Amino acid sequence: MAVHIFTTGGTIDKVYFDVLSEYQIGDSAIPGIFVEANVTCDYQITELMRKDSLEITEEDRKLMAAELAASEHSRVLLTHGTDTMVQTAQLLAESTSDKNLGDKTIVLTGAMQPASLRVTDSIFNVGFAMAAVQTLPPGVYIAMNGRVFNAGEVKKNRAAGRFEANL
Amino acid sequence: MAVHIFTTGGTIDKVYFDVLSEYQIGDSAIPGIFVEANVTCDYQITELMRKDSLEITEEDRKLMAAELAASEHSRVLLTHGTDTMVQTAQLLAESTSDKNLGDKTIVLTGAMQPASLRVTDSIFNVGFAMAAVQTLPPGVYIAMNGRVFNAGEVKKNRAAGRFEANL
Amino acid sequence: MAVHIFTTGGTIDKVYFDVLSEYQIGDSAIPGIFVEANVTCDYQITELMRKDSLEITEEDRKLMAAELAASEHSRVLLTHGTDTMVQTAQLLAESTSDKNLGDKTIVLTGAMQPASLRVTDSIFNVGFAMAAVQTLPPGVYIAMNGRVFNAGEVKKNRAAGRFEANL
Amino acid sequence: MAVHIFTTGGTIDKVYFDVLSEYQIGDSAIPGIFVEANVTCDYQITELMRKDSLEITEEDRKLMAAELAASEHSRVLLTHGTDTMVQTAQLLAESTSDKNLGDKTIVLTGAMQPASLRVTDSIFNVGFAMAAVQTLPPGVYIAMNGRVFNAGEVKKNRAAGRFEANL
Repeated sequence: MAVHIFTTGGTIDKVYFDVLSEYQIGDSAIPGIFVEANVTCDYQITELMRKDSLEITEEDRKLMAAELAASEHSRVLLTHGTDTMVQTAQLLAESTSDKNLGDKTIVLTGAMQPASLRVTDSIFNVGFAMAAVQTLPPGVYIAMNGRVFNAGEVKKNRAAGRFEANL
Repeated sequence: MAVHIFTTGGTIDKVYFDVLSEYQIGDSAIPGIFVEANVTCDYQITELMRKDSLEITEEDRKLMAAELAASEHSRVLLTHGTDTMVQTAQLLAESTSDKNLGDKTIVLTGAMQPASLRVTDSIFNVGFAMAAVQTLPPGVYIAMNGRVFNAGEVKKNRAAGRFEANL
Repeated sequence: MAVHIFTTGGTIDKVYFDVLSEYQIGDSAIPGIFVEANVTCDYQITELMRKDSLEITEEDRKLMAAELAASEHSRVLLTHGTDTMVQTAQLLAESTSDKNLGDKTIVLTGAMQPASLRVTDSIFNVGFAMAAVQTLPPGVYIAMNGRVFNAGEVKKNRAAGRFEANL
Repeated sequence: MAVHIFTTGGTIDKVYFDVLSEYQIGDSAIPGIFVEANVTCDYQITELMRKDSLEITEEDRKLMAAELAASEHSRVLLTHGTDTMVQTAQLLAESTSDKNLGDKTIVLTGAMQPASLRVTDSIFNVGFAMAAVQTLPPGVYIAMNGRVFNAGEVKKNRAAGRFEANL
């Protein structure tokens, strides 16, 4: 079973650039994570953008929807900043009348700490999401904090730094 | 949704004891992994034994089956050494005529590198298995190398250090 | 032998704050480094400021010189951003006619990658500097890249990201 | 200034071999440590043996003394298991009437946790020892726990897992 991974930026891929004395979104950390975990499932990675999710616009979201719909894969993982992940999941869920999206299992995930840190949630989250996307039926989901949420039934609790059901 | 995690030993929990100048299976690494990943799903951990899977006997496997059957949870994650994980999954799959097991989603996982290492598959594998156990229908599965295998349809390729379909 | 450690900011102590989606200088990483390395030598830590060294002013440097001179310890380690570490070392070297500074062994160190990263020079550099400060005779030194440089005889090669002799 | 590093085994270089389900002393971790810390000082590494220090014999110690004496470098770092590091330092100190050893700065170091672990003293200890060997006058020293000890004036407190002055 193959998974099509789309990256849009967010925290997972933030790396520290000493020349600039700051972090920036770098190349996707996912290939490295997959090598260290010896992941053997087939996958394809497409980088759509490198944005903090507070900077993601409605145009960006429509681009994501179009790109996901155009994928020949039925299993799609979308990495995304956590701040507006709920909004992107919502738009994708509303777009599933589009047959090309409606037939797909779409899982969004992200992280609060970059994969480049010694202590991070990135690795666990990517592992968790990779299983969710291979096992869940068609639909749009958010996979965070070791739980699977249906799009439209989740919110980010910013103060607590975690996702919670919003039924 | 709650997950009942049973630990039996294996590589995930191996830690280096300097006094002994060697690695031994230590306390479960899972609570620490869950703290770092900010896992909020309910779970319970039961340590059944601390054995390399080459040392696991048929009696041990029957104990595991009995303990899993006695769990009040329908979602069960079993961490296990990789060398005989296939055999344990096989016995559990053969025991599912026992209604108490047959109603459960049972996922086995392990690792080739301890969670205590800087470079490891443990974190990804635990994350991956935690999603699988929450999403899969009742049955017995092995979750390794970023893939889900049905018990009875998988083997460990020892030379390559990975699990493969054995249909 | 006791070491007085003064922190001024710089890269060693940068941590990722997910709420802010960025790195900022956090609490000193040194106590944690010392615990993990089981450091038993006596030490005292004084935080002077939390600045990228590009933001350090001449007033800041004079404050550092005054604080170091006022220390009752003869062994002083100063952690500092790498971009203007050479300038601070130069000012301290010029101030050693002040008897309170002239009697001291003063070692400056920093890092190109924060201690919070999985791959970092921070730990090695702090270890290296802690030995240098305990063994060198009175004077002002920069300890970077596994080498000890006399203040006034070193420059930072920004393009290559390392310190070199500048005789 | 060049440093000649001799490795004899011990904990720094222990790696986990999943095929064997155990740790073993692997290739020296030092080149990798030096790359990550961007160490630019000249060095040469010679592997003498791969032994836990409880297995080191008097013949082994005489070999070490001969090899160190034959080195064309005056700065020598010897990595060694911690259990009998004191004994090896003692023999080297007693051999310094041999002019070829007596002119050298010889620093022994090791670790309680392998460099391959996420939490380790190896990196700090190697950094610390690399400074000590470049700054100390001729003699034989043990560099552990962030302190420098003269050979003959140190013991390992096994219960506490650290080195202490033994005056």
